Amino acid sequence: MATYPPTAAPAPADAGLPTRERLVRATARMFVGEGYQAVSVNRICAEVGVLKGSFYHFFPSKRDLALAVIDHLEGGLGEVLDAHERAARGPIDKMRASAVAVAEIQRNLAASYGRIVGCPLGNLAMELAPVEPAAGAHVAAVLGRWRERIGRHARDADEVGLLAPGVDPDELAGLVIAAMQGMILLAKIGDLPVSQVPVAMHRAIDAGLRP
Amino acid sequence: MATYPPTAAPAPADAGLPTRERLVRATARMFVGEGYQAVSVNRICAEVGVLKGSFYHFFPSKRDLALAVIDHLEGGLGEVLDAHERAARGPIDKMRASAVAVAEIQRNLAASYGRIVGCPLGNLAMELAPVEPAAGAHVAAVLGRWRERIGRHARDADEVGLLAPGVDPDELAGLVIAAMQGMILLAKIGDLPVSQVPVAMHRAIDAGLRP
Repeated sequence: MATYPPTAAPAPADAGLPTRERLVRATARMFVGEGYQAVSVNRICAEVGVLKGSFYHFFPSKRDLALAVIDHLEGGLGEVLDAHERAARGPIDKMRASAVAVAEIQRNLAASYGRIVGCPLGNLAMELAPVEPAAGAHVAAVLGRWRERIGRHARDADEVGLLAPGVDPDELAGLVIAAMQGMILLAKIGDLPVSQVPVAMHRAIDAGLRP
Repeated sequence: MATYPPTAAPAPADAGLPTRERLVRATARMFVGEGYQAVSVNRICAEVGVLKGSFYHFFPSKRDLALAVIDHLEGGLGEVLDAHERAARGPIDKMRASAVAVAEIQRNLAASYGRIVGCPLGNLAMELAPVEPAAGAHVAAVLGRWRERIGRHARDADEVGLLAPGVDPDELAGLVIAAMQGMILLAKIGDLPVSQVPVAMHRAIDAGLRP
């Protein structure tokens, strides 16, 4: 049962989970739809059906819950990326697995939330950076590790001569993540269709390949 | 006297401008530093030294002022881009002029605000989209016209055989804007240095060129 991306409505199986896990999953769903600041502890408690005393037993603050949500999102994203990379053959296709995964993730988000909500991690990174810098750095690091994951495949590709001369594998990985985040932004503000997100990522990868 | 990007402190020459223009420029400076929702009409009036009656004489609402700020930002950006494109020779270098301009803009913003504030237009587009959709569409259209500006140079390049076979000039322009916005996001959340923003734009352009 994939936990990434979150869905707008609770998964039926969530009801049987321990309280802490239900708090994390419900909050992840609400953060994706509304953002960190718009979602209060009161609303999270109402959504999960717990008293505030129970909430604070698990999380001293909404910020602490946000850290757990970020870890939950990273875990779920990692499973999705692992599955797509396992199905890919060779380092180039393993880089492309991120684009294939993002296409699926954005399709699932649009189907569930009924609009372009953006990147669950990128949104949180942008929103948290000014108001909760430590939590912002926590989610920025998740995007950094995604970048490094693509960078490892790019180095593997470089070692067998698949990258164009002079291309830096880590810089290429940065361009892939930037193309993803930037095209998601353009889709969210309505400038371009969300179908362009994986296209931009594939083009960024193409840019680094030996012609 | 360039008006783009806005500076953290008022330009001395602003004091001599008509009240409406002073409201627009002061608000542009404040929106870049703090965003649309964090800046109240009261604070704008205090910053410019006008009474609220005077404010509402010029702008029925903060939203109307935001539209004027967006137009002001587009005008200033257009002058900066025009200047860089005039100094460039040939369609490829005119595409690259946007990357050179963005490097300069981000340097000026960092020097004036003392931190990575992001893209003045991209920030407003993201913030306004959910809360003021009409104003959000207004600023998204500015980014769309920037994309079209790059797309015209890309088509010029294509007509003289400078693009790689199969590259769509408009798609290439979208990738350049996405690389810009995405890398600015990664810089703002602290994942990569802001110096990577023009690098990513140049790489996106490289991706479309005949090898």
